[in-house]
Amino acid sequence: MNGAESLIRTAVNAGVECCFANPGTTEMPLVVALDAVPGIRAILGLFEGVCTGAADGYGRMAGKPALTLLHLGPGFANGIANLHNARRARTPIINLIGDHARWHLHADAPLTSDSVSLASPVSAWVRTTRDANEIAIDLADAFAAATRYPGRVVTLIGPAGCQAEESTGPASVRPAQNPPAVDSPALCNAETALRAGKPVAMLLGSSALMERGLRAAARIAAASGCRIFCDTFPARLERGEDLPAVERLPYFPDQAIETLSKFAWLVLAGTREPVAFFGYPGLPSFLIPEGCRPVLLARPEEDVAAALEALAEELRAPKGARKAAETARPLRPSGKLTTHSLGEAVAALQPENAIIVDESATSGLPYFLASSGTPRHSYLGHTGGAIGQGLPSAAGAALACPDRRVIALQADGSGMYTVQALWTHAREGLNITSIICANRAYRILRIELARAGIKEPGTQARALTDLTHPVIDWVSLAAGMGVPAARAETAEDLLRHLERSLSQPGPYLIEALL
Amino acid sequence: MNGAESLIRTAVNAGVECCFANPGTTEMPLVVALDAVPGIRAILGLFEGVCTGAADGYGRMAGKPALTLLHLGPGFANGIANLHNARRARTPIINLIGDHARWHLHADAPLTSDSVSLASPVSAWVRTTRDANEIAIDLADAFAAATRYPGRVVTLIGPAGCQAEESTGPASVRPAQNPPAVDSPALCNAETALRAGKPVAMLLGSSALMERGLRAAARIAAASGCRIFCDTFPARLERGEDLPAVERLPYFPDQAIETLSKFAWLVLAGTREPVAFFGYPGLPSFLIPEGCRPVLLARPEEDVAAALEALAEELRAPKGARKAAETARPLRPSGKLTTHSLGEAVAALQPENAIIVDESATSGLPYFLASSGTPRHSYLGHTGGAIGQGLPSAAGAALACPDRRVIALQADGSGMYTVQALWTHAREGLNITSIICANRAYRILRIELARAGIKEPGTQARALTDLTHPVIDWVSLAAGMGVPAARAETAEDLLRHLERSLSQPGPYLIEALL
Repeated sequence: MNGAESLIRTAVNAGVECCFANPGTTEMPLVVALDAVPGIRAILGLFEGVCTGAADGYGRMAGKPALTLLHLGPGFANGIANLHNARRARTPIINLIGDHARWHLHADAPLTSDSVSLASPVSAWVRTTRDANEIAIDLADAFAAATRYPGRVVTLIGPAGCQAEESTGPASVRPAQNPPAVDSPALCNAETALRAGKPVAMLLGSSALMERGLRAAARIAAASGCRIFCDTFPARLERGEDLPAVERLPYFPDQAIETLSKFAWLVLAGTREPVAFFGYPGLPSFLIPEGCRPVLLARPEEDVAAALEALAEELRAPKGARKAAETARPLRPSGKLTTHSLGEAVAALQPENAIIVDESATSGLPYFLASSGTPRHSYLGHTGGAIGQGLPSAAGAALACPDRRVIALQADGSGMYTVQALWTHAREGLNITSIICANRAYRILRIELARAGIKEPGTQARALTDLTHPVIDWVSLAAGMGVPAARAETAEDLLRHLERSLSQPGPYLIEALL
Repeated sequence: MNGAESLIRTAVNAGVECCFANPGTTEMPLVVALDAVPGIRAILGLFEGVCTGAADGYGRMAGKPALTLLHLGPGFANGIANLHNARRARTPIINLIGDHARWHLHADAPLTSDSVSLASPVSAWVRTTRDANEIAIDLADAFAAATRYPGRVVTLIGPAGCQAEESTGPASVRPAQNPPAVDSPALCNAETALRAGKPVAMLLGSSALMERGLRAAARIAAASGCRIFCDTFPARLERGEDLPAVERLPYFPDQAIETLSKFAWLVLAGTREPVAFFGYPGLPSFLIPEGCRPVLLARPEEDVAAALEALAEELRAPKGARKAAETARPLRPSGKLTTHSLGEAVAALQPENAIIVDESATSGLPYFLASSGTPRHSYLGHTGGAIGQGLPSAAGAALACPDRRVIALQADGSGMYTVQALWTHAREGLNITSIICANRAYRILRIELARAGIKEPGTQARALTDLTHPVIDWVSLAAGMGVPAARAETAEDLLRHLERSLSQPGPYLIEALL
């Protein structure tokens, strides 16, 4: 078998099932190998950012890596933004990039480019295969690097010659390692803080936001009276039904500092010290104020769920004692469509086991606040700030969980970045309801201008944040890519379209005019 | 004035007039400065690849750099693909990227990323400003680097603090340097080859493809009997009317080698030795076959037009003697819409001084062959192989030349990459007729599979090159972004829609079903 087949065979043996692909000429042997070796489903995205965003959504829900298969240099570069989000989400992803055959590199052909320099900022591991006999070993190493707990983005560059030439066959795959346990001094420090009789908050991230971690954290809260927060943009947060609710740390640094100033200790569980998304003059980068001290219980790379359970035991917290707060779904909203009524409408109707993909930017907080009393669901946040994450990531989540409804809360400006994802929603018949939060502006930038003291932005500043001229017709865009769609101008419209979408399989798009 | 204003003032003093922008929070002082300092028009693209592609089209037509204004890290990364094309086209472009204030970098905030690593593969010059007092000097240096003949892509990273803090004001700008003259040994070698009595070809690139170079090359051809070719994908080629026609070197290496095997010498004027776009087993990287020898007359960085004129003088070639070959426009085609009738329809109707932006991929050669007898026009090729160049680049060309009609010949698969460009066509009311060559496939990959001996691609290989499920409705996509559009299913349809578009200002899109 050739190198490409040895690579794909190795990936199949490792349990890889999905490949999000937009290949070119330098990846043709790998394309052929995807047919020759059964076991990996190839999903076409019409832009590389769709492929990488889908791999991120898939990895967060499947808990294991997908492949991406991308063209060298500029092709890969188109996928960087969503790999940046995946890196911040600690999602396992294995990028495969072709390259010119090594003997052709010296010609500096038009597409010749430095894929290593492009891949390094978003990859924890980058390697260029040197020989067809090594490409399967390189894939096995890539798999091991990607699945290092909780997950990492890795990139393997496979020159065309190494794909096409004869190889010695697949390589053996090492099973994924369990995360290292938290050491006892960390547990002891956290216990001391929680027993000190002062107000304490816990900030949860990474796998602490899965069911096991949340239930242990709730026991700790019940025993100690601490409050529980999660990262502002969690990679994946399990929510709803009887799961313990967590608060999100506010986005703007002044608000986050204000929130944390009420506590003497901040216990960090599966996350790191919170930082400001941007640096604002006069405000610090690190958000824990004086008078509040961080206590590291567990890093994201450690077994945080076990640490939380051990801490609950130390505190002699009863098991299963705490029920979720008595919150209910909101009532069906009516009247004007606002971010509030939008959030209520989704929370009122979202089905059991929904997956909420949230790239709603400035439109999303009311939904989060309205939805703690909904049925069980997974919430995927926008981790890295690279916009264009939502629609692709929804595709990946839907492919990982075909029996669950995905609801993408998508800001309009960000949604345009990777609008091509809708075509993949249609091609694969994915159960995705995309709700475009159409405020027709880069609203966050208007807020930032105001925060910077620009009360009356000039003509060009206004134009650069304005999406009304021309208005984007999302219903037409969706129709152009095979996704049925409707526009909602009132809360009633939104409820009606949502009910229609939720009653039928396949994708649907609702343009919610805010 | 703050650093941002000092930078923009310096750019205005240098003659910069256009800024293709999709800024974020770290670029807000520059956004404000674009209003505070008059002289630079900001044009919003809804995706960074639109901005960089537009800057490429603008630079090729204006002959001077535009700014791009892009968000740090992943934002810039979205623009890399079209910067790759611009680098290969030797287009002058100055990228401005914001960054976190330097004091915020240590926090490793979510968007923190290595913009230098991302920018280096596509930039001849990269610098990160260290102080508000230096940002204007850095812009002046960036301008000098970008305008080094014939043009280069450069990237200046301006941390938010350096934009916002007080500065010492604008920096002085050095005028662009003339290109160095070609030395006499090179002239002498070329003359020797042309006088040797053997078959000679000249391969023209870069500024040799502007009027002055073409007329000098035609004199040389008339005096020596040599044949004239241009690069397969010229950055800009002036054509039509009485301009001397040139042949394009074929794309596939076997065909290019076959073409060149008829000659004893290949004189390189403003280009380098032709290379294979991809490396194919059994075919060489460099395309000049044994028996044909390269003679370098002028590199792209040298004054190739003067060198061609000097060579014509040495050969005592009469001035203005040669007329264009007696070619006429094709007749209006009828019947089935094919790549041939599409090419004929465009060539039959394109107006005086059109700008043809060609990213038609496998659909475009018939147009090129049919159009040598058209009125004067500029032809912009797809230089770097990074797809998604056409629609953005058309926007830049239209902004550089508002009195000329731009016709974008756009492959459908490639067009989807940067489909957001249509919104900018509409917002700016650009005189662009986009013709989508809708073969509903990644046709080139099917050809590559066949060339690789894969006669019957498997299910997944077929799916990864197929754009029929679902069909992309380009008329809906265009309508969704405010561009009037129509579908053509016959040659007559295409002629009718073309005439309609050419009779009215503003953008128009025609989906040509092939």
